[in-house]
Amino acid sequence: MLISELVEKLKQGQSGLVDFKIKNDLIILSAASLEKAQNNQITYLDKNSPLNLRKLIQTTKASVLLLPSNENNILEAIQKLSCNWIILKDPKIAFAETLELLYPSEIEKEGIHKTAVIGENVKIAPGVSIGANVYIGDNTEIGAETIIHPGVVVYRKVNIGARNIIHANSVIHSGSRLGDECVINANAVIGGEGFGFVPTSNGWKKMPQVGQVVLKNKVEIGSGTTIDRPSVGETIIGEDTKIDNLVQIGHGVTTGKGCAMAAQVGIAGGVDIGNSVILAGQVGISNKVKVGDGVVASSKSGIISNVDAGKVVSGFPAIPNKVWLRCSANFKKLPEIAKAIRELDRKNSR
Amino acid sequence: MLISELVEKLKQGQSGLVDFKIKNDLIILSAASLEKAQNNQITYLDKNSPLNLRKLIQTTKASVLLLPSNENNILEAIQKLSCNWIILKDPKIAFAETLELLYPSEIEKEGIHKTAVIGENVKIAPGVSIGANVYIGDNTEIGAETIIHPGVVVYRKVNIGARNIIHANSVIHSGSRLGDECVINANAVIGGEGFGFVPTSNGWKKMPQVGQVVLKNKVEIGSGTTIDRPSVGETIIGEDTKIDNLVQIGHGVTTGKGCAMAAQVGIAGGVDIGNSVILAGQVGISNKVKVGDGVVASSKSGIISNVDAGKVVSGFPAIPNKVWLRCSANFKKLPEIAKAIRELDRKNSR
Amino acid sequence: MLISELVEKLKQGQSGLVDFKIKNDLIILSAASLEKAQNNQITYLDKNSPLNLRKLIQTTKASVLLLPSNENNILEAIQKLSCNWIILKDPKIAFAETLELLYPSEIEKEGIHKTAVIGENVKIAPGVSIGANVYIGDNTEIGAETIIHPGVVVYRKVNIGARNIIHANSVIHSGSRLGDECVINANAVIGGEGFGFVPTSNGWKKMPQVGQVVLKNKVEIGSGTTIDRPSVGETIIGEDTKIDNLVQIGHGVTTGKGCAMAAQVGIAGGVDIGNSVILAGQVGISNKVKVGDGVVASSKSGIISNVDAGKVVSGFPAIPNKVWLRCSANFKKLPEIAKAIRELDRKNSR
Repeated sequence: MLISELVEKLKQGQSGLVDFKIKNDLIILSAASLEKAQNNQITYLDKNSPLNLRKLIQTTKASVLLLPSNENNILEAIQKLSCNWIILKDPKIAFAETLELLYPSEIEKEGIHKTAVIGENVKIAPGVSIGANVYIGDNTEIGAETIIHPGVVVYRKVNIGARNIIHANSVIHSGSRLGDECVINANAVIGGEGFGFVPTSNGWKKMPQVGQVVLKNKVEIGSGTTIDRPSVGETIIGEDTKIDNLVQIGHGVTTGKGCAMAAQVGIAGGVDIGNSVILAGQVGISNKVKVGDGVVASSKSGIISNVDAGKVVSGFPAIPNKVWLRCSANFKKLPEIAKAIRELDRKNSR
Repeated sequence: MLISELVEKLKQGQSGLVDFKIKNDLIILSAASLEKAQNNQITYLDKNSPLNLRKLIQTTKASVLLLPSNENNILEAIQKLSCNWIILKDPKIAFAETLELLYPSEIEKEGIHKTAVIGENVKIAPGVSIGANVYIGDNTEIGAETIIHPGVVVYRKVNIGARNIIHANSVIHSGSRLGDECVINANAVIGGEGFGFVPTSNGWKKMPQVGQVVLKNKVEIGSGTTIDRPSVGETIIGEDTKIDNLVQIGHGVTTGKGCAMAAQVGIAGGVDIGNSVILAGQVGISNKVKVGDGVVASSKSGIISNVDAGKVVSGFPAIPNKVWLRCSANFKKLPEIAKAIRELDRKNSR
Repeated sequence: MLISELVEKLKQGQSGLVDFKIKNDLIILSAASLEKAQNNQITYLDKNSPLNLRKLIQTTKASVLLLPSNENNILEAIQKLSCNWIILKDPKIAFAETLELLYPSEIEKEGIHKTAVIGENVKIAPGVSIGANVYIGDNTEIGAETIIHPGVVVYRKVNIGARNIIHANSVIHSGSRLGDECVINANAVIGGEGFGFVPTSNGWKKMPQVGQVVLKNKVEIGSGTTIDRPSVGETIIGEDTKIDNLVQIGHGVTTGKGCAMAAQVGIAGGVDIGNSVILAGQVGISNKVKVGDGVVASSKSGIISNVDAGKVVSGFPAIPNKVWLRCSANFKKLPEIAKAIRELDRKNSR
């Protein structure tokens, strides 16, 4: 793709093209990070990047740079640049759009691989691709253009929408319902039975888990992530919510739209999460807690009680982030605090 | 099922039926939570439920309520209830029994799917169901009425008891021994090699892991959970111990009977856990620690030294729960404590 | 194997044989821990073992003991031992070598199982074993003597070196490159897409993840572990680095040689880890942090900023281990510290 062709494409995209300069209309062969880009490669500088990255735009060997429009020093710097540049309101979105153009998805062969095992009364829409050794249970429906990679197991009565991508060896249990344009990464488990046991004098009595998991449109689920179904009712992951690898979502959890959860987050049963909630890596949330819209929890925090909308929380038990930062800074001083107390005490008791 | 039929069934169960009132002997079609139940549905109120749930029994649209016998205000409230009710010593157990009646398990087809690959000298008892694309290694034995779902891989010389349920795409390594009535959820790995490497001047030397994993009767293993085999000897999960999703059990761990471990717990090698131990989500236990009978560890705690029987611990490093609650409360005050010290110090030095 | 035969083998090994005494040249049938060893079994005492283990060498029923050379009390103790003994500089390495001799790996049948599905233009070197229901994508290469167990899915254009062992139901995504002598344990996912989404006014915009994962020689990956590919460039796991179960390695992470990461470690995107870094269980590392050579992080620590080579860190946020130990000890005293402050304050304000 020529740089001039890319400019035309970006004008039609979401990144807000502001200005550009093509000194030499080269072919863009591939993309790389700002640190590693070479000739015939494209790279980008994100908004609000740290100084050490910003300096690299002076020395990069990249053939074309996607740059942010909101920074004066960038506008000065480009006067001296030898390479081609494109200025955009959101260069990271432009980079994402460029990657889509440079690396189109490999087309999966349409149709059902001869080794796939398809149950009775399965409805498969046009354009579906079902890979080798896939198993599809009875009475399941699969929407148009959905791609199911090798080794996936779909139990009975599952409803899968259109244009989903389901990666290898993941498992979708009975009764689960997926919207459109979801991505299920490899070895994820959707709709496994919730962890429900009642203590009795004869040991644990299992609470049957007869509910379902519902993934709304555009949900993405990471590799090895597990989303449990509840005893009754539904576990619901809201539209456009993105979940990273090795996350545990307990039975009966509900999340709103547009949330993001980083790897190894664990959410206990019955938790109610609002819209646009961001949970960083290894965060935990206790049973039945309510987390309001727009809450951000920093990594490793443990939320054990309700959090109001818009709060940023940290630590365990989670407290407001700003308080936690000051407490953590003082935690390091605990030995001297204890020593000071002992000395003051000694003076006072004299 | 008519309400009157359910009453007869519950009388034969474990939940301790105390009293009931059928004003209108309706058909129960399904079950739901107290918040969501509608006509022709059954729901329950657990013992010691919070007030906001207890109030719902006045307004629920459910056709029949399972209620606890131990609370006076319930006995008053039922005088005014328009719906049918059943009072029990343990309504949660009654609800579990009701779900079993309302939603019987779907019967798997007995027999071996034509795409399953069965090794040499495999012994398969009557009533076993082996799903599509399953692989069973040589010299493995599978007990009566065990169900193996599609995509499961069982290595060699595995001994699987009767009435186990092994979910899709889980893996059971050579030499593992499962008792009766175990459940292995999807994508779990039983008997993978322990993480044992000895440092040498030429890098890591692998310690061969030639031991086995033993799951006693009624053990349940969550989706994506991994249970490692040791270098020598056995990793043992005690009878009726229930393990949630994405838990790591290291090589040579032993657990007693009736334990419960929530999601993302991690137990390092050689840990010795007693009976009826409860570990909440994301708890970690260090190498070779001993945890006594009946210990409870709250979420995210990290146990790095032995814990005596009956203790409730929290935090990292884990300390008695009551101490930890007070310490955590004071952690939030660290900035003011540090400030107070500085001020007192200034006054005293004047 | 006779004890005398073992002595000859160990002389050729890496464990540094110092001395031995064979009073009765028995056959060694198997190996066990020092606590459990019986007649015709071999066991070992590691260097610097705790006293309770050292005492066991007086009473063990093992037929032969591997003992450390560096401890005077051992040299005294062996005078009184009735069993046979071998003294070595590193008895743990000797035990590993002994296990290799006593329990040789089971040979996998060479060749491609008839149920495996092999794509177009796949290059398979001599001596490769491909198990039942394996799927190998187009244009993939598999090096000599590599063993691929049942149910594994390898996508397109993957390059797998020689003598790798890839366990059941693991998944290797397109473009991944594995060196020689790697081990991929069951249900691991190599090269899944990195978690990259850019916020826009219309929700999350996916950053295409077109990079690759590279595993150098002798890398071992635990069961259920996930290693993500980046948007551009590579995620690289250095030679001889060993990773335990359920670990998350984010997109664009680089690790050096000879690292070890225990179970449930989580490493966020772009982290740069040096050589010989040791991360204990449930450690987390934040985005783009640099961790120097030889760093050790104790369990559950959270590294949120760069750590210089050679440091030992603990806690969250991670601080030097020695400081953390003192702070943690004082954390328990927080209630009395707060009380002391209140009392001193009262006195002073009088």
